[in-house]
Amino acid sequence: MVNIINIGVIGYGYWGPNLVRNFVEMPGVQVRTLSDFNPELLAKAQARYPTIQVTQDCRDIFTDPKIDAVAIATPVSSHFELALAALQAGKHVLVEKPMTTTSEQAMRLIEEAEKRNLVLMVDHTFVYTGAVRKMHDLIATNCLGDIYYYDSVRVNLGLFQHDVNVIWDLAVHDLSIMSYLLPSTPYAVSATGISHVPGEPENIAYLTLFFEKNLIAHINVNWLAPVKIRRTLIGGSQRMIVYDDLEPSEKVKVYDKGITVNGNSESVYQMMIGYRTGDMYSPKLDMTEALKTEGLHFIHCIEQGDRPLTDGQAGLRVVRILEAATQSLKQQGQLIELNTAGVAV
Amino acid sequence: MVNIINIGVIGYGYWGPNLVRNFVEMPGVQVRTLSDFNPELLAKAQARYPTIQVTQDCRDIFTDPKIDAVAIATPVSSHFELALAALQAGKHVLVEKPMTTTSEQAMRLIEEAEKRNLVLMVDHTFVYTGAVRKMHDLIATNCLGDIYYYDSVRVNLGLFQHDVNVIWDLAVHDLSIMSYLLPSTPYAVSATGISHVPGEPENIAYLTLFFEKNLIAHINVNWLAPVKIRRTLIGGSQRMIVYDDLEPSEKVKVYDKGITVNGNSESVYQMMIGYRTGDMYSPKLDMTEALKTEGLHFIHCIEQGDRPLTDGQAGLRVVRILEAATQSLKQQGQLIELNTAGVAV
Amino acid sequence: MVNIINIGVIGYGYWGPNLVRNFVEMPGVQVRTLSDFNPELLAKAQARYPTIQVTQDCRDIFTDPKIDAVAIATPVSSHFELALAALQAGKHVLVEKPMTTTSEQAMRLIEEAEKRNLVLMVDHTFVYTGAVRKMHDLIATNCLGDIYYYDSVRVNLGLFQHDVNVIWDLAVHDLSIMSYLLPSTPYAVSATGISHVPGEPENIAYLTLFFEKNLIAHINVNWLAPVKIRRTLIGGSQRMIVYDDLEPSEKVKVYDKGITVNGNSESVYQMMIGYRTGDMYSPKLDMTEALKTEGLHFIHCIEQGDRPLTDGQAGLRVVRILEAATQSLKQQGQLIELNTAGVAV
Amino acid sequence: MVNIINIGVIGYGYWGPNLVRNFVEMPGVQVRTLSDFNPELLAKAQARYPTIQVTQDCRDIFTDPKIDAVAIATPVSSHFELALAALQAGKHVLVEKPMTTTSEQAMRLIEEAEKRNLVLMVDHTFVYTGAVRKMHDLIATNCLGDIYYYDSVRVNLGLFQHDVNVIWDLAVHDLSIMSYLLPSTPYAVSATGISHVPGEPENIAYLTLFFEKNLIAHINVNWLAPVKIRRTLIGGSQRMIVYDDLEPSEKVKVYDKGITVNGNSESVYQMMIGYRTGDMYSPKLDMTEALKTEGLHFIHCIEQGDRPLTDGQAGLRVVRILEAATQSLKQQGQLIELNTAGVAV
Repeated sequence: MVNIINIGVIGYGYWGPNLVRNFVEMPGVQVRTLSDFNPELLAKAQARYPTIQVTQDCRDIFTDPKIDAVAIATPVSSHFELALAALQAGKHVLVEKPMTTTSEQAMRLIEEAEKRNLVLMVDHTFVYTGAVRKMHDLIATNCLGDIYYYDSVRVNLGLFQHDVNVIWDLAVHDLSIMSYLLPSTPYAVSATGISHVPGEPENIAYLTLFFEKNLIAHINVNWLAPVKIRRTLIGGSQRMIVYDDLEPSEKVKVYDKGITVNGNSESVYQMMIGYRTGDMYSPKLDMTEALKTEGLHFIHCIEQGDRPLTDGQAGLRVVRILEAATQSLKQQGQLIELNTAGVAV
Repeated sequence: MVNIINIGVIGYGYWGPNLVRNFVEMPGVQVRTLSDFNPELLAKAQARYPTIQVTQDCRDIFTDPKIDAVAIATPVSSHFELALAALQAGKHVLVEKPMTTTSEQAMRLIEEAEKRNLVLMVDHTFVYTGAVRKMHDLIATNCLGDIYYYDSVRVNLGLFQHDVNVIWDLAVHDLSIMSYLLPSTPYAVSATGISHVPGEPENIAYLTLFFEKNLIAHINVNWLAPVKIRRTLIGGSQRMIVYDDLEPSEKVKVYDKGITVNGNSESVYQMMIGYRTGDMYSPKLDMTEALKTEGLHFIHCIEQGDRPLTDGQAGLRVVRILEAATQSLKQQGQLIELNTAGVAV
Repeated sequence: MVNIINIGVIGYGYWGPNLVRNFVEMPGVQVRTLSDFNPELLAKAQARYPTIQVTQDCRDIFTDPKIDAVAIATPVSSHFELALAALQAGKHVLVEKPMTTTSEQAMRLIEEAEKRNLVLMVDHTFVYTGAVRKMHDLIATNCLGDIYYYDSVRVNLGLFQHDVNVIWDLAVHDLSIMSYLLPSTPYAVSATGISHVPGEPENIAYLTLFFEKNLIAHINVNWLAPVKIRRTLIGGSQRMIVYDDLEPSEKVKVYDKGITVNGNSESVYQMMIGYRTGDMYSPKLDMTEALKTEGLHFIHCIEQGDRPLTDGQAGLRVVRILEAATQSLKQQGQLIELNTAGVAV
Repeated sequence: MVNIINIGVIGYGYWGPNLVRNFVEMPGVQVRTLSDFNPELLAKAQARYPTIQVTQDCRDIFTDPKIDAVAIATPVSSHFELALAALQAGKHVLVEKPMTTTSEQAMRLIEEAEKRNLVLMVDHTFVYTGAVRKMHDLIATNCLGDIYYYDSVRVNLGLFQHDVNVIWDLAVHDLSIMSYLLPSTPYAVSATGISHVPGEPENIAYLTLFFEKNLIAHINVNWLAPVKIRRTLIGGSQRMIVYDDLEPSEKVKVYDKGITVNGNSESVYQMMIGYRTGDMYSPKLDMTEALKTEGLHFIHCIEQGDRPLTDGQAGLRVVRILEAATQSLKQQGQLIELNTAGVAV
């Protein structure tokens, strides 16, 4: 006999409906309870999914022994408290990104999940897209050679948020993608930016991430841009990628372009640089909705006891950079070293 | 009787042929002498323009009393020495960008030109394009409102230079455009970057420029990109511009988009932000070759004793930022204040 | 007291779900019954909308006295029979495009609706998009001057249909748009095309429509194209439009470009043609879902007894062209005159 | 000892300067004489190329025994007379496209050249571009499978010509490309179009070309379009091409897309169609200027006695289609069969 996994979802604002829709359509999974402060949103959900229980009190989810796992889609400031309560109630947890507002909180959640042998997964959605998974394959099979840089522009006329700056809202996507794609972790960050509304968080920011060896990363995020841009360049010693998430079909383009450096001649003190340009190709991508792939992975990890691709450690790595970048931002680009220590369990 | 302006051109490498071609076609102007170290380039020029004198010794230009003005299109390291010699020989000077390798040199040239009442003009070519002049009009007539940011990406698979880093090669364009377009000057710069070839200058760099009040600027330059991008966003409180220099015809797009901030209510401690989106329009641009417009302006300034749009001070402002940015780059984003003092004459 | 309009929907395949979703969300409207041959589709609908009655027999809709109006979203071959039955049962009708498979059928439906004073509306969806309505405004206010041509490319790797050729599937969109936008009706059509699968209908076709005076129209449709293209050029004597339905925001661009003809000089037997090029602008568009606007218009017409924008006559005009084009296609471009007679009631 | 090939060029308007520039830079080739009616154009040429003889009388070229070959870049109406005179004077001939104004003239030139054993080449420039040659390789190596269609849009706000319609000006490019790329020749043509200026030739035209078997071609040309488009789709049973000549680098994209037809089951009367979609790739192209490649080929054919890729027969095939298309245009799409007979020598 097959066991059904029962899920409680907290938050039915912007992202919650996508979580519910995907879990509802997943075989072997049942959305048992949905909670939200807002009764209108609950009514809307109820009309659409009459079999789901709704409640304004999320504790109804924690105390329900039939619920196996909790998906949290609330504002970031509540992530820690809700995830901790869920873990302490013995539930597996899928939490929105950014995982928490501080790295201490993230470490605390990791510790709690490990102690209780529960799955703790962060909803780094982009990691589960066909485009990012294809780029991961290309990098993992050394198709790009040594990775030289990751350079992303993620701007649009976006909703100004009052509690977090644009880094926590937009750069978090690139940081989660980089955490998955890149072979190493940054050791320091320099960030600059500006707020155009007095008393509000920064709405434009620029991050540079420093890595050991030949690698650098840069992220340009902006809530006040006239056009929407989602374009990432990834440079390697062998090949280079242009990843444009707004392209309807050819999101990933791989260029056989680059330089060759010949520095072995003793008599020449300057490097000889050759330029190479060849074909471009755009691989076919899996077009499955990322949240479906991700949800299935969450269920799989619960059933098999596996560690998720985007586990608490991945969430922690991202939060640590967000913290450091915000600190650097306040100091106009001052270099901030990143704590790369693991979690003491 | 009309006086012909006689011009000597130094350097016939990449840019020199464009200077010669434009001056040759200008009424009232004669290219009298061309100098270059390379006899093959001189032979090529001679074949094309049989009436121009050619020489490997640029001193022939300085000592020729018939020559009124000198255009210098040599590597940046020689700009100061050649421009100074030309000025001291009583010639008006048009010098390639960047003007010099240090701000001290730039100040010395400004001083010399002022003392002798000679025109000293820097070849900030983009300032003379139809696109940049149109954007200048839009900003000057307050069409954009307060300027919030200037954000430029200027990347391609470019020739790695051995003597200057990518900032001096590519960011110089944006700095010269900003110097013309923006209402104020930056007070500090933070720059980051990397060199992917041991012992060579940085081939990727990111600059943030800090201004008083609400304005910030950012420049992303890269010699190792798989695709060519030349895109600048300029955000204002009323309207915003996307300037894409690679577009064949619609290079400048003006978006009636932005936010409105309502912060006068005392009871609300957070700002109310409204979002506004309207039509876009792309103004018709003057398609005259920039170098033609610029050359005519140089001649006009010589004849009328006017100060050029891109005079020595404009050149100096750009060099000061290049110096500071390079210093910041070496210190991983360390904020470097800009000396904004004028020239003591 | 407000009367609720009760709607029956026939067909829940590709388009039916969109009809149901829009009518369900409309105030004052109730989807009472849904019919489809396929019980799986009905089960899916039932799960989503538990309050809607479902049936495999569409006659349940015709015989239900509470139902005021019927929306038909079935294959084109069944449109006539279903719409006629609905009208004869005294229901208002919204029928998918193309309206019928022959113009005789279309005329019969028009006659039946007029006789019974019922609303007969054809679902020419594009007519209700913000883009097409904006273009209609531009043309109606003479912004374009005399209309010179309508030229559309509508191609992609599309589902090959077995019962109708690509004209009935794709060109129908352009014909319905033209029927709304253009100031006159075509008098003849020439069509060419090919089938690449033996025994199957044409999967590529090219239509030219001839109008009186200066106007011509052309439509290029293809089920076997490697990329999706939806681009229409509309040329006028004063301005010209590029309408690209795949653009996320700037779907309509208006170009101040054209020629001026000066032919009044007697001594010159050839026309003097001047070329004019000015600004481009892209107006802000209403982004309301077309089907919502259309549904509200259907309800409005039922309540007020108004004639719909896309009434039976509009449907008939389109079907007549489809018939003639198919006939011309079989004769490799042979000109077929269009019957422009009205309906005898 | 190497023989220099001496060339006479007739016509220095739009295209002539390109011919002269390319021949001048070619080793082993000398442009000896240039003729044009317009003395100003000759003065301009003389200033640029002081060693070339200039004349207003093209007979000076025919009668000069030192001249081996003549390149003709004059209006089409003069091609026949000039080319015939050149051949009769024993000169090899390179003539602009379209080759002549009638197919009779084209056959007469072919006959004359064959009789005298002279090279007769038509300047079908696109055939010598890297993009078209790459597509030829792809088709010749069966990479595309069976060719299903060639569909081209070639529109812009172009100069209205008084002596020929838009087909002779723009469609000629596609016809010359097709003549090189496609495996067979069309047997009939249907063309439609319109003139928007009274008494002037058609400025918009649409051509359909019918081939034996599964192939069809379509060309859309327009002098009155607000934007410039140069896009060709080539569909094959295995792969499909998008060729966009305005793309700066990725002009040719090869899509691994298509349908598979399974029709061998007897019990199923309808074909089973499968849809296939895979990677896209954009091959690196030779960026040599087409006219240089073409000029070298002309010289090679003169020296080796080889038949040019774009010989008189290729020119004749194109002229025959232009004639038939113009005839069909006058009859609103009436199918005109193409004479595919060879030349009686």
